[in-house]
Amino acid sequence: MSKIMTKKILVLGSKGYIGQSLLHHLVNNGHEVIGIDSGIKEKQMENLGVKSLFEPISSNHTKISKLQKWLQTPFPLDVRDYEELRKVVKVFKPDVIVHLAEQPSAPYSEIDMEKSHETLMNNVETTFNVARVVKEVVPECHIVKLGTMGEYGNPNIDIEEGYLDVEHNGRKETFLYPRSANSLYHTSKIMDTDLLSYYCRVHRLRVSDIMQGPVYGFDTDTARTSFYYDDVFGTVLNRFLVQAIVGEPLSIYGSGGQTKGFINLKDVMKCVELIINNPAEKGKLEIYNQYTEVYSVLELAEMVKTAGDEIGLDVKINNIDNPRKEPEDHYFNPKNEKLLELGLQPTKLSKDIIQDMLVEIGKHKLNIDKSKFLPNHSWK
Amino acid sequence: MSKIMTKKILVLGSKGYIGQSLLHHLVNNGHEVIGIDSGIKEKQMENLGVKSLFEPISSNHTKISKLQKWLQTPFPLDVRDYEELRKVVKVFKPDVIVHLAEQPSAPYSEIDMEKSHETLMNNVETTFNVARVVKEVVPECHIVKLGTMGEYGNPNIDIEEGYLDVEHNGRKETFLYPRSANSLYHTSKIMDTDLLSYYCRVHRLRVSDIMQGPVYGFDTDTARTSFYYDDVFGTVLNRFLVQAIVGEPLSIYGSGGQTKGFINLKDVMKCVELIINNPAEKGKLEIYNQYTEVYSVLELAEMVKTAGDEIGLDVKINNIDNPRKEPEDHYFNPKNEKLLELGLQPTKLSKDIIQDMLVEIGKHKLNIDKSKFLPNHSWK
Repeated sequence: MSKIMTKKILVLGSKGYIGQSLLHHLVNNGHEVIGIDSGIKEKQMENLGVKSLFEPISSNHTKISKLQKWLQTPFPLDVRDYEELRKVVKVFKPDVIVHLAEQPSAPYSEIDMEKSHETLMNNVETTFNVARVVKEVVPECHIVKLGTMGEYGNPNIDIEEGYLDVEHNGRKETFLYPRSANSLYHTSKIMDTDLLSYYCRVHRLRVSDIMQGPVYGFDTDTARTSFYYDDVFGTVLNRFLVQAIVGEPLSIYGSGGQTKGFINLKDVMKCVELIINNPAEKGKLEIYNQYTEVYSVLELAEMVKTAGDEIGLDVKINNIDNPRKEPEDHYFNPKNEKLLELGLQPTKLSKDIIQDMLVEIGKHKLNIDKSKFLPNHSWK
Repeated sequence: MSKIMTKKILVLGSKGYIGQSLLHHLVNNGHEVIGIDSGIKEKQMENLGVKSLFEPISSNHTKISKLQKWLQTPFPLDVRDYEELRKVVKVFKPDVIVHLAEQPSAPYSEIDMEKSHETLMNNVETTFNVARVVKEVVPECHIVKLGTMGEYGNPNIDIEEGYLDVEHNGRKETFLYPRSANSLYHTSKIMDTDLLSYYCRVHRLRVSDIMQGPVYGFDTDTARTSFYYDDVFGTVLNRFLVQAIVGEPLSIYGSGGQTKGFINLKDVMKCVELIINNPAEKGKLEIYNQYTEVYSVLELAEMVKTAGDEIGLDVKINNIDNPRKEPEDHYFNPKNEKLLELGLQPTKLSKDIIQDMLVEIGKHKLNIDKSKFLPNHSWK
């Protein structure tokens, strides 16, 4: 990467599944990066008795630590603490803030109403504080914020990229695409979108909002991130891979007809880098649908079975009661042209990729806790 | 009102402009009512150096106090304090909760980012706590929540009542009407709507959400409420009436082409009573557009001038710089059929009504603080 593209980037939530990978990826690409994190997720995981299958690793750790030491970044730092956030931003003066400092699990948000409250207030307040610190301290800064494809829910029409042209009684208007989610977590992200749309339109902030589908994988070119396979923090394909390794049936919620747009963790790095290099204009929330391929949960399970059986695993599939409230048979046609237009070359899910991940996970087979696969919590 | 219609009603935010009137109106109609209030608004007004033109009065005060004493209601009580709210709901077991416990002023929310934060966090958390206490303690309870027509913003198409049928690429879907507001306050109300829509759809709460236009007036059949005429808490027509009395020009923001749906405070009472008597079904957020007449700000000013001049006032009109970020010339065609279908007989704004209000306000002329009319805060 040429010197001229180097940016100062603040990553909020830098110890999460995406955050860890991104921190190392950005440092490796020559950016000046600071990551801050509240450490809340570690406490949540401890309380739930779940952990990452392996320790994250990276070759860049020293480089990052030095940078953070020099800047005397308080770490841990909770983005909900506005004064502390403000201090870091005032010293570092980032060109870009990547906002990942949100409670990211739908099942977690539905365990009980206290966790719903925690999710809602954390996600709304961190997002507000990011808007506030940019407005007050670095008004030119580009906010890159992680949203979710789950904000759209399951509409019976095509899902456009963020906005919808409507003709009604002979007149026309373009709206923020109407959102309607199936969990409190996803609803908190809709509320974030409303908030940032407002700050873009009325206070002319510069924000890119990423509607991301479920991510799979753990290795990027520069690091290995934390890897969750439990019912609360594990995304579906990651969980299937671990179940396949220990000979437990892949647990499909309901019929498995739930269809989503998936993306490889490596492609998440590429996408965020593309978005950072193409800052949003002021005045309108820029929205990207960030996924590369559409699969139903059942299709994913069958791909894992085929790939796993071929390397000697005996993979079984089991349909269990769906703990979620979601349609299992629905229209799903989302658009994802904007990142492709910026130059994304998608990594397609293949038997080879699945088998490579299975081999790596197999090395940690003894650390797998089989009791963590099945949903302990239902939101019915 | 017949005995059989008597309900147990908890009014949250019972000391506000709407709350005070509603408390007395509902008691007078035979309901068993408790009002709770945080007292926050009084502190906000003290900090801003503004006050009501006159003390609220009512003939029912003793009756309400006795009821509240018997129930040992903690008062003041902040709805953000979930455990305290829960205690009251557990003892009282309301059939209806009227949720007015929100920071209600757009200008207040834009004074600075601290007040934006206060507005956002208060409104989101009180709304969450209302949903929570109903879900956990009184799942059959009907939540009646005050929203605002301002959530819709100024779309170039007709504003339907809450939902919009969309045809797109040959397929159809009905969405929550897409919202896009012009202040942080109004945005917080959009976020409330998203939250309650979620709790209705997925957790089957029973909620009516009222999209209310600007209210004018101070007397209902049973009480006189607080009356604000300052730039922060005073609604536009109320402010014009007070300006007319002291001979100050009616201050129009910009061209005055801003067009809104207005409603008389007396009709607010009727509307809320109609909604209470027609509980929402579980599973879908019931939305009412609560206004009776559409006027531009300039038209209102001209009506006040005509009515005022006729009773010997010399009313002037002055266009000042618009402190808000809003279109001053826009399409505006909102629907309001649902309350009319339930039987609402609207009180139309007339010269007589304006003159009656002017006469009453005239009695308090000496208490009017002329320095509070003009906007001290701009959100540009």
